[in-house]
Order: sequence, then structure tokens, then C-alpha cells
Amino acid sequence: METFNFLSIRYNKEEKKLEILDQRKLPDIEEWLLVNDPSDMITYIKQLSVRGAPLIGVGASMSLYNHVLLNESKLTKEDITRISMELRESRPTAVNLMYSIDEMMQVKQAEDKRDLSAENLGRIAMSIIKNEVEMCRKMSEFGASLIQHGESILTHCNTGSVATVGAGTALGVIREAHKQGKNIHVYVDETRPLLQGGRLTTYELEREGIPYTLICDNMAATLMRSGKIQRVLVGADRICRNGDFANKIGTYGVSVLAHHHNVPFHAVAPMSTVDIKCETGEDIPIEERSSSEVQGASGAFGTVRWAPKNSKTFNPAFDVTPMNLVTSLILDIGIIDKNNLDKLK
Amino acid sequence: METFNFLSIRYNKEEKKLEILDQRKLPDIEEWLLVNDPSDMITYIKQLSVRGAPLIGVGASMSLYNHVLLNESKLTKEDITRISMELRESRPTAVNLMYSIDEMMQVKQAEDKRDLSAENLGRIAMSIIKNEVEMCRKMSEFGASLIQHGESILTHCNTGSVATVGAGTALGVIREAHKQGKNIHVYVDETRPLLQGGRLTTYELEREGIPYTLICDNMAATLMRSGKIQRVLVGADRICRNGDFANKIGTYGVSVLAHHHNVPFHAVAPMSTVDIKCETGEDIPIEERSSSEVQGASGAFGTVRWAPKNSKTFNPAFDVTPMNLVTSLILDIGIIDKNNLDKLK
Repeated sequence: METFNFLSIRYNKEEKKLEILDQRKLPDIEEWLLVNDPSDMITYIKQLSVRGAPLIGVGASMSLYNHVLLNESKLTKEDITRISMELRESRPTAVNLMYSIDEMMQVKQAEDKRDLSAENLGRIAMSIIKNEVEMCRKMSEFGASLIQHGESILTHCNTGSVATVGAGTALGVIREAHKQGKNIHVYVDETRPLLQGGRLTTYELEREGIPYTLICDNMAATLMRSGKIQRVLVGADRICRNGDFANKIGTYGVSVLAHHHNVPFHAVAPMSTVDIKCETGEDIPIEERSSSEVQGASGAFGTVRWAPKNSKTFNPAFDVTPMNLVTSLILDIGIIDKNNLDKLK
Repeated sequence: METFNFLSIRYNKEEKKLEILDQRKLPDIEEWLLVNDPSDMITYIKQLSVRGAPLIGVGASMSLYNHVLLNESKLTKEDITRISMELRESRPTAVNLMYSIDEMMQVKQAEDKRDLSAENLGRIAMSIIKNEVEMCRKMSEFGASLIQHGESILTHCNTGSVATVGAGTALGVIREAHKQGKNIHVYVDETRPLLQGGRLTTYELEREGIPYTLICDNMAATLMRSGKIQRVLVGADRICRNGDFANKIGTYGVSVLAHHHNVPFHAVAPMSTVDIKCETGEDIPIEERSSSEVQGASGAFGTVRWAPKNSKTFNPAFDVTPMNLVTSLILDIGIIDKNNLDKLK
């Protein structure tokens, strides 16, 4: 294990100290939460202090490793297995979390071949982290190659360093294009109801000095109509065999608008997001969340409500964008369009 | 003058008491504000306690009338003219406000023919109110004739009784269809940034027992895709000679989505909204509002901010929907489509 210091998670090897940035308090307050043991991490995951599929996977893996490191003499294999299962179930829809914990627990190995020593768990956790960073780097480079000088790019939700341990997916591409001096401007959808764009993407862009303009989700159409947006970059939570993909609610609407206005539209995601068991977007189950999120908003200020107390709401966490509205998918293995979808398999 | 009692404004003839409902506190608190004199009304208009173009016009006219009634012996014609100008300028973009005050001040008459007695001002104010109610009734009936049994209707912003002194425009149609027993369901766009849908349309629908579901603006697309929306009804702030119209920001995006999903899309507005000096939507100036609205939200709870303090925003109050995306305009003179646009002139 090495000492590391990402935007959203950090580890001090000498002090054996794991900390995560409390994303609920961003952008106004940068507060680091100490992860004493896996139960702390589960609490932080459930209360959304930690969010972003790759980050959850890394956070859970690191908390498992550090717990074993601190208590190696006391823990049995059964203890470690039980704790790993608790971590694995802390966010049911996050595929990365399951993948990461399964890797830590070496589920593909025969049971008697599994090495649950702190040293080995540390090695696996570090390889998960390095792999995430490397995938982000590749996507960023492939994506940035598409960006023209002076483009204005619309993005939705947060797909950056607070959601991953690397440069991010769509925001990684934006970061790389900026670094290459392409003089880009970013339009940021606030992304109701949880406001990941308004709270987190703005925070990251501001930190890096990338010029941006924050908009409400319903303003993107008028910007496209007046020719102010040259490209849309979004993330993806799950990609099907036919290229359809699920992403944060609101993504599908943006894809329709981009299609209507002839604006290129791309999803940026690692190959680990591809689920070949899903033939088409119809196979993706969509989680519905609580009414309170739509009835108001939460942030560093707490929670406010503006709609009637018992108002009925519809609150899907994701929607599905069909491949026929997508210009290309930007993956860590390269750029995929309608003509080379077989590379997804 | 008569005693009246609308959802958003009321007048007691015996007590000479004019009151308006504080819309900033809805839906949780129904607080009536006493209008002692026109300067109170100007304050209420500026702080958005009174909103909705027709309501502002009526409120300003009534405050002028009541002030003259209470102070008839003391006020000169010059005083009344000065006060009327202050009222007229309290909200620069509201065309109805200017029309109403100009009617009260009888600007079309030669100056020596103008009768500024309380009695005459009261007669004009009452005729403005009756005209508003009558226009709403006609639009509601024309519109409701289009609605099929069991339809789910999407609406944007607030176009109901809190914005007018009648049944409203788009919401008037919905109200009438419900009254006719058509078993409709309403999907309500929350309408960022000012949340007129989430705060006011929900309030009105709840009051009348019309079934509704509140959504974030970015959720309409996925509802249309799954066939859950049969029609879109919105209001209009200004209609051009070619049928293009300006309405609350977000309307244009909804029109593109409706077009893509083959969902009929209608704007509902009185003929007084038609501005024949505007050839096309390109001629409509769009007001940009302050960053603080996009950076957070306001309601009965006060104001909260979730975006970085100095984040740059884009905040147009309106957008323009082109007639080629509109199925028909529902006006108080009847239903207009691409084939009978000459009726707008």
C-alpha cells in the first residue's frame, strides 16, 4: 500500500489513516471524515457523503484493507467475509462496489486459495486504484482527441474526480482538453434533483480554473438553438450490448435535444460499465427514489422543501439513452460508434 | 365596484379593503397582505409577492382605484397621474400591467375627456377584472374540447388562478377538463429556477383535488418515451404574428421533446398576448435575471445556495418556441394552427 491523496479520498500509510471528503458539504465546506472502520464507511456511503460508483468501490476496498491491517491478529476469515458482505450491500445499485469487493475477496479463486492477509488485500486495493486512474487517463485522451479548439461543451451530473480516483469520465475528457490548451468552455447542467452539477462539477471546474457557466437543466435547449453548444459529454452507469446506456436522470432528454439541433453527443465510461447480459436499454431496471428529493433540495445548508408536504412525485434515478441518438461512446479501449458495436462484447 | 374574492386577490367593498395573497410563502403558508396604498402594491410586485402578468395588472389597477376612493378630496389629477406612472413602471416586462394602467388612465381619450373620479376608475377596474375572467373561461372551454378521456397532461410553470383573476390559461383548460369529468392526470414540471410549478401549480391542483405528479424538469423526456404523456399545455407571455411565442424558460425544450415523441403541444393565452409588431420569435427580447436564482432556491424557508458563491450562470427568464413545433394555439377567440395564423392579425 502507498500513501495517496486524491480529491475525494486520501490515505496516510505511516499513520494507517483513511479519510474521505464529505461530498454533502461541497462546495462551501471541505470537510474530511475519518474512516475508523468499515462500519464508518457504510454510514458514509448510505448518507451519500461518498458517492460516484468508482469511488464507492475504492472506498469500500480501502476500508476493508485498513481494518484487516489494524486488527490482523483478531480477525478470522469468517469475520472478514462477513464485513466484506456488509460493505458489498451498502449500495445495492452500484455495480463497481460489488466488482471491487469481489476482487478483494478473490471470489474467482477456490476458497482455500484466497489470501486475506493485510498485505495481499493492500496489493489488490492498490491495483484497483491504479486501474481506475489508468482507465480515466485513457478515456480522457481518446475523448480529448475529438474536441476542437474553442468548443463549448455541455455536461450533465458529476463525472469528475469527486466521483472517481482519477480524472473522471466526461469531466476527465474536459480536463484533458483544457490541459491541451483547447480553450474550451463548459456549460454545466445543475442536474436536479440531487444537484451534482450545481454543487460538484462547478466545484471541480472552479478548482482547476476551467471556464464554465452553470445553468438549470431546462436551459440547455435554448443554448443549443442559439448555436452556443458544440458538443455534449455525459457519463454512463451501465452500457448495453447494443450501445443503449443508463445514466443520471435527464441524460435522455439532453440526447433528444442534441439530436434535434445536430450537436454531437457522447457518453464516456470505462469498459467495466458494459453489461453484456443487457441486450438493450429495456433490460435495465431503473431505481425510483424518495419524494423528498423532488419536493425540495439538500446541501451544506441542510434540507429545504418548497412543494406541498404530501405531493406525489416521480423520481427515477436514471434514464436510458438509445444508441441511435449517440454519436459515439468514448471508452478506455477506444471510441465506439454504430459501426463497431461488436467491440462492446 | 363589487366585493370579490379570488384565489390571489380580494376586495371588501364595505371596508374598502384590498388584500393580496403572498405568493412567496405558498404552498405552506397562506398569508394575506393588506394593500394600504399604491406604494404597498409596488413593494409587493417588486418582491414577487404578487406575480402573474394578468394579476399584476389587476392588482395595480385596484390599488389605484382604492387609493383615489379613500383620498378623493385630497388628490389632484397630477397626483393620480404620478402614482399611475409609478405603478406602471414597477415591473418593466409585464405588458398587461401597462395595458391595465393605460386603460385606467384612459390614455386613448383626449386629456380633458379623462374622468379620474373614484367611481369611474372603479368601473374601469371592474371591467378589466370581468374581461380577464371571461377570457379565461373561453380559453378553458376551447381547450377542454381537445382533451380526451383519461389523458395525462404535462404542464410547465404556473398558469393558474394565482397568476390571474380567473381560471388561468393552461391550468384553466386542465381545471375545465377535470370539471367535465374527463379523468385527467397532470404531470407538473417544477420549473427551475423559480419553481412556479413545484410551489404554485401543485398548490392549486391540490386545492381542487385534481390528481397530479410533480417532476423535475429533466424527467419529462423519459415520461414521454414511455408513453405516459398524451398532451402538453403551457402558457405564453408573448405571441408573434407567425405564431412563435415566448414563455417561461424550459418551454422550448419541452416543445422539442413533444415533437420528437409525437405528443400534441399547445400554448394557451388570451389575444392580449399577441404582439403583431413581432414578426417572428427573433424579435422578442429575452430578459436575463440574476445569478442567485440559479445558484440556489427561494421559498417560504428563505433563500439557500448550493453552487459556488461566485459561479457564473446563464439565467434567461423566457425562451422562444417556434410555431413549427406547436400543434395549436388555444386563444380566447378560438383554436389557431398553422393553417389559420391570419386570425392572429
